[in-house]
Amino acid sequence: MKMVAFQGERGAYSESAVYKFFGAQTTVKPCKDFRSVFESVVKNEVPYGVVPVENSLEGSVNQNYDLFLEYDLKVCGEVIVKIEHCLIANPSTKLEEVKAVYSHPQALAQCRNFLEKFGREMIPTYDTAGSVKMLKEKGLKTAAAVASERAAEIYDMKILARDIADNKENYTRFFVLAKEDSPLTGKDKTSIIFAAVHEPGSLYHALGEFAKRNINLTKIESRPTKRTPWEYNFYLDFEGHRSEAHCSEALQALGRYAAFIKILGSYPKAA
Amino acid sequence: MKMVAFQGERGAYSESAVYKFFGAQTTVKPCKDFRSVFESVVKNEVPYGVVPVENSLEGSVNQNYDLFLEYDLKVCGEVIVKIEHCLIANPSTKLEEVKAVYSHPQALAQCRNFLEKFGREMIPTYDTAGSVKMLKEKGLKTAAAVASERAAEIYDMKILARDIADNKENYTRFFVLAKEDSPLTGKDKTSIIFAAVHEPGSLYHALGEFAKRNINLTKIESRPTKRTPWEYNFYLDFEGHRSEAHCSEALQALGRYAAFIKILGSYPKAA
Repeated sequence: MKMVAFQGERGAYSESAVYKFFGAQTTVKPCKDFRSVFESVVKNEVPYGVVPVENSLEGSVNQNYDLFLEYDLKVCGEVIVKIEHCLIANPSTKLEEVKAVYSHPQALAQCRNFLEKFGREMIPTYDTAGSVKMLKEKGLKTAAAVASERAAEIYDMKILARDIADNKENYTRFFVLAKEDSPLTGKDKTSIIFAAVHEPGSLYHALGEFAKRNINLTKIESRPTKRTPWEYNFYLDFEGHRSEAHCSEALQALGRYAAFIKILGSYPKAA
Repeated sequence: MKMVAFQGERGAYSESAVYKFFGAQTTVKPCKDFRSVFESVVKNEVPYGVVPVENSLEGSVNQNYDLFLEYDLKVCGEVIVKIEHCLIANPSTKLEEVKAVYSHPQALAQCRNFLEKFGREMIPTYDTAGSVKMLKEKGLKTAAAVASERAAEIYDMKILARDIADNKENYTRFFVLAKEDSPLTGKDKTSIIFAAVHEPGSLYHALGEFAKRNINLTKIESRPTKRTPWEYNFYLDFEGHRSEAHCSEALQALGRYAAFIKILGSYPKAA
C-alpha cells in the first residue's frame, strides 16, 4: 500500500488530491506544515508527498516553490482538485443558530459574498479542515466552519450550505513529490527552476530556446532569490518530457543563459 | 501640503515609505486595507496613495497587483524602504518579563532565529505597528511586538532589541499611486500589465520587442486572470519612459502578441 504525506488535518483539500492521484486505498500521513511533507519524503518515512503549488484564483503557493530549491526532490506527478467550499457545523446546529464562522483567511475571502450576506463574525484559523475538527472536538453548537465536503464526512458533521464560494472556477494544482520523476508517457510536462544570467535580454533568449523548438510553456513564475535583493529565480513548466530530444536540447541550450538550472522532473500531465 | 493614503496603523512600514518619498511635512491618511488606499485616490479624497508591491524576501504583494487591474490609477513613483524589525514593549517592561510576542505572521517568520532562541509564545496579528498600538492601549506589561523603530517612537514605547530579523537584506518596494504618472527625467522605469495571446511562443515574442530594442526588463511576474483557470496576466517593469521612442515602439509592437495591455505608468527610478 502506498503511503503519502500531505499538509493539514484529515479532510484537507490536499488529502483529496492524494486520493484523486493515488486512489482510495492509499494511507495518508498528515503533516503540520509544508516543510514536514518535504522532510518526510527526503528521510524515507514515506515514498511520496503531495503539496499545492498553484490556485487558479490566488496564484502560486510561494512557500512550496521556495522549498523545492532547498530539498533535492523530484516532481513525479501533478493533480488538479476542484475547490468547493461548504459551510459545516455540528449535526444538531441549525443555520440560524450560527454566530461565528471559522476557516483559513483565504477560504473566508473566497466566500465573501455568501458570508457577508450571512452576516456572522468571521474568525481566521490556520486550516479549513482543522476548523471543522475543532468545532467537533469542542462540541461548539453556535459556530460553523468553511471546508470541503470530505471534511464534513470525516468528522461526521453536517453541511449547512454547499458550494458557497463567489467564483466557482476554483481549482488547486498539486505536485506529487518523490525521489525520482516519472518515465515518458507521451503526454508529459516538465518543471524546472533557473536563474537568468545578468545580461540584458537573457530571459528572452532563455525562453527562445523553447520557442524555437515549438515547446509550449504552460507556466512561468518569478521568485526572489533571497540572496540579493531584486534578483529572481524563474519557475518554468513546459510540455514534453526531459528525455525527448527537443526538450533535452532546449535544456542544454538554456545553460548558455542561465546561472543555474534545477530540473524538478517530468511527469504525466493532469487530466 | 501633500496628503497621502497608506494601509495600516501609524508607524507601519508603509508610512515610512510615504515620508521617504514625500518628505517629513506630509499629511498621512491611514487606511484599513489596500483597497481603501486605491479608493481614496480614485475618489479624490487624497491625491496620492502608497502601497507595497514587492518584498526582497517574500516576493510580490499579490493583492496590490490584482487591485491595479481593477482601478484606473497610474504609478507615478517607486520608493524602497529597508525593513528593520525591532522588539518593542511598554516602557516599564523588561526583556525577561515578556511572555508573548505579537506581530504580523510574516514579521514573526522573518525573525524566526531570534524568536526561537527567545522562546516566548508568538501570537499572529493583522499588523506590525497595530500590535505596538494594542500593547500601548491595553497597557500590557508582559508582552512585546515586532515592528519598526518608528512604531516605537510614535506610540512612546521602548525598544528591547533592534534589527532582529534573520536576513538583513530585507527591503520593500512601494508604488506611489496617482491619477497621472510622471514626466520624463531620463532615469525612468515603466510598469505595464499584459495578457499574451494564446499562441505558442507569444510570451517569448512579446519579450522580444523589448530585447531587440535593448530595453532592460527589471521584473516579470505572472498572476492568474481569475476568469479562466491557468490563464495568466503578466506584470512587467522595464527601464525607460513610455514617451521615449524606443519604449513607445516596443509597447506598440507588443500589441501584436498581447490580448490586452494596461500601462500603469512611467516614473523616476528609486535610488
